[in-house]
Amino acid sequence: MPGSAGDRMIRSIRVAACSPEIRVGELRTNLRRAAEAITAAAADGARLIVLPELATSGYVFENREEARSVAMERGDDRWRIIQDALPENTVAVVGYCEDGGADLFNTAAVLTRSGRVGDYRKSHLWGLERTIFTGGDTGGAIVDTAVGRLGVAICYDNEFPEVPRKLALAGAELLALPVNWPAVARPAGEHPPETIQAMAAARSSRLATIIADRSGEERGVEWTAGTTIIDEDGWVAAEPRDGLAITTLTLRKTGDKSLPPHNDLFADRRPDLY
Amino acid sequence: MPGSAGDRMIRSIRVAACSPEIRVGELRTNLRRAAEAITAAAADGARLIVLPELATSGYVFENREEARSVAMERGDDRWRIIQDALPENTVAVVGYCEDGGADLFNTAAVLTRSGRVGDYRKSHLWGLERTIFTGGDTGGAIVDTAVGRLGVAICYDNEFPEVPRKLALAGAELLALPVNWPAVARPAGEHPPETIQAMAAARSSRLATIIADRSGEERGVEWTAGTTIIDEDGWVAAEPRDGLAITTLTLRKTGDKSLPPHNDLFADRRPDLY
Repeated sequence: MPGSAGDRMIRSIRVAACSPEIRVGELRTNLRRAAEAITAAAADGARLIVLPELATSGYVFENREEARSVAMERGDDRWRIIQDALPENTVAVVGYCEDGGADLFNTAAVLTRSGRVGDYRKSHLWGLERTIFTGGDTGGAIVDTAVGRLGVAICYDNEFPEVPRKLALAGAELLALPVNWPAVARPAGEHPPETIQAMAAARSSRLATIIADRSGEERGVEWTAGTTIIDEDGWVAAEPRDGLAITTLTLRKTGDKSLPPHNDLFADRRPDLY
Repeated sequence: MPGSAGDRMIRSIRVAACSPEIRVGELRTNLRRAAEAITAAAADGARLIVLPELATSGYVFENREEARSVAMERGDDRWRIIQDALPENTVAVVGYCEDGGADLFNTAAVLTRSGRVGDYRKSHLWGLERTIFTGGDTGGAIVDTAVGRLGVAICYDNEFPEVPRKLALAGAELLALPVNWPAVARPAGEHPPETIQAMAAARSSRLATIIADRSGEERGVEWTAGTTIIDEDGWVAAEPRDGLAITTLTLRKTGDKSLPPHNDLFADRRPDLY
């Protein structure tokens, strides 16, 4: 059987990364747009739908008070606006500004129609985020869902190769990656550098990665428009049209990291040496 | 000073990656060609010159006996053929089949005109290499040289993101990466996948990487021709012409991993979480 792609591909899943227009500070509008994006992706068959980092709040806050004004608790009734857009057996990963009491967190909610499966708090804070958010203390998270064992990380987290590696070693079948990538210069013909890092991490650990980025600009920050779905071999499988990237990923058997006929991405590791 | 590229760039070094024609089993011919490649690179000013994995022996051995027939001990007199081609204060990294007594190793020699600075034994073996070589027990190596603190890894080693990360954390200023990459299919317009992994690793740790690959084919194995110099920001700085990739890299101050104004690639790590 090794060497036969047909035998080794045993599962497919339709996934989407959405990049709705988000307006900083306009919580109700953003919740509605998130719900609309989820409705459209679900109508096209997506079972896993990823939205950007801080999708409900926007990113470029004037100050901590503005962030607090659009923060949501996990138990906030308004989550229903998003959850009601989700069909059964469909999972959404949505970045939001989390009201954690004294602290604010840059968090990704993992939601279904009927419940809340998990919340991951960004653990590597970028730029001025430290003036607003408290960092999480897990460095990525594993969330078991109806569509499989998800890894979740947020933006700058994934630029630390330890994070996707750790999640893959913990059994993540897919990585949901909400981001807000400020545009940086790059040579002509190259992917954004963060995309290259995600492609490399995907290939190193056979970990398909669904990236939902912003586009356009917000208060002078130009976004990368890096919304991309990367397959488990590290190649670009889908880029967005009208704010929606969607594709059917074919995944090898869970935990299969073999490289026939002689190698295995995980078994060949030498953890005693690192 | 943070934010001023001019102030933060304090060193430049001219580096080369060479891809001479190599013939499996023809040790004398390969040593001569390695010397010629080094002479040409040095004449163009290179102070660090990297040659491919198993540059003196070829790669696609019929069996272990053939590999042994072209193996060299570290003390072999014929190393002078290569060392005599090196000007003073110039360093070469050359892959060879190491005769280690009972064991053979896939090793990279770090050489100067006057001496031998180090030897690194490949620690992650690919394909049928296990039938020929014994794996090294360091997972990359640090070698202090006249041109700086070098990281050294070989081919498949660098597909484990732990390896370049570990070398960068140990203070490597540059990574010398001899490889023999068998060609694999890739989408149009994409770099070879191993190049993408090296670009990502370089960017994640600000670790310029000098990759010397094979080109052409050997006993039915087509090589990727992936010889490339990657700068410390993860971009392609030079590709080969007539088997020689050469450029002057500008490096930030040793150990400077800052991302002004607020971040730092290393200080922002959360090693307690991985």
